[in-house]
Amino acid sequence: MDQSFKPTPRTRVRRLGKRAHYDKASVHAVLDAGVLCHVGYVIDGQPYVTPTLYWREGGRLYWHGSSASRMLRHLKQGVPACLTVSHLDGFVLARSGFHHSVNYRAVMALGTAQLVSEDDKHAALEEFVERLFPGRWAELRPPTRQEIKATTVLWMDLDEVSAKIRTGPPVDDEEDYALPVWAGVVPVETAIGRAKADPRLLDGIALPGYLERLEALLAPGRMEGERLAAVG
Amino acid sequence: MDQSFKPTPRTRVRRLGKRAHYDKASVHAVLDAGVLCHVGYVIDGQPYVTPTLYWREGGRLYWHGSSASRMLRHLKQGVPACLTVSHLDGFVLARSGFHHSVNYRAVMALGTAQLVSEDDKHAALEEFVERLFPGRWAELRPPTRQEIKATTVLWMDLDEVSAKIRTGPPVDDEEDYALPVWAGVVPVETAIGRAKADPRLLDGIALPGYLERLEALLAPGRMEGERLAAVG
Repeated sequence: MDQSFKPTPRTRVRRLGKRAHYDKASVHAVLDAGVLCHVGYVIDGQPYVTPTLYWREGGRLYWHGSSASRMLRHLKQGVPACLTVSHLDGFVLARSGFHHSVNYRAVMALGTAQLVSEDDKHAALEEFVERLFPGRWAELRPPTRQEIKATTVLWMDLDEVSAKIRTGPPVDDEEDYALPVWAGVVPVETAIGRAKADPRLLDGIALPGYLERLEALLAPGRMEGERLAAVG
Repeated sequence: MDQSFKPTPRTRVRRLGKRAHYDKASVHAVLDAGVLCHVGYVIDGQPYVTPTLYWREGGRLYWHGSSASRMLRHLKQGVPACLTVSHLDGFVLARSGFHHSVNYRAVMALGTAQLVSEDDKHAALEEFVERLFPGRWAELRPPTRQEIKATTVLWMDLDEVSAKIRTGPPVDDEEDYALPVWAGVVPVETAIGRAKADPRLLDGIALPGYLERLEALLAPGRMEGERLAAVG
């Protein structure tokens, strides 16, 4: 199996090429650290960007929604799509405005969406729920035939794809390092808050253990001390 | 001044219309709570979605980057664009897979980008820095003419725009409320971590007070107790 995606004229990163990554491990790591993507599509020449949830299985990206959704009704026709995932990791404060930046991890995937068949939708949706909340699917009231029908699931091959990643401190012009200006990185993190039970939750139902895993999924590198730190 | 944007066939929310907001206060609140947007544009029929920073001033959205950027070189030609901002606020766990959802705030703005003139770029970039770090611009080494030239700043009128917002607990089918399944909301939050000084920072330079404001900007509604809470 190839360990890297082949850059094409459309996915080759032109600016700041040292931030570009085409190896599968880097691309998958960025994708697997997120849940929200932004899907681009074109209707009558107008681009639209719709935020939606996604998940990865092997070399494929999946996303889903109501069969009535404009985005899904359009994309299932086999038109070009772009799925972008990005994580903002920090503000990079340099000694000049020009060298200010952000630390981030982003993946852009180009392709054509394919429709998951009626027969395969149930399993795909189970995968989606189980990825976020392992064990939950079996606890839920099973989907009805009508609910499955009302849901569209699309997938796209990870093929024409690139990652772009910036990490580390600011990079200033050499002579600017002598300036008495604070410089460094202010991290931005995703945090999972305290779960709020539904007001109508039945008595005696404990918080499921799998919810603790969410934190590890969305902020894998974070340490306890860092998580709770405020600026200062 | 109109207090609302007029929905068009392109921005009218078709599904779950109760989540739609066209009033300026709602749209501005979503935009002003964020820093990262996803810009959609079309080249040779292929949509691209590029994450980038943005800021709002009055009825306009601004974004910027290297003059060599594909996104900016393309959009400054006056072609259709879509700028989407989204905040993921929580996972909504219902008693059936079908009614699982997320809480979110999103704005989609359609339009045509305009180029900020050479004369106005300096002021626009100052606004951008000052919005995030008020007082910082005056501390920095001023931009050179070449740096200003190497930077493209675009703006777009907020005109054809809508917001879509979901809040609150899951909404289950009435008969499912009797099921012994945990249901509720797991909040997702943006947190500002402890600032990391540049290894080359001069001795004796204190952390600027304006960095504390970042937390208020990006997570205005958060209370101290909630911010530090883990799942459990």
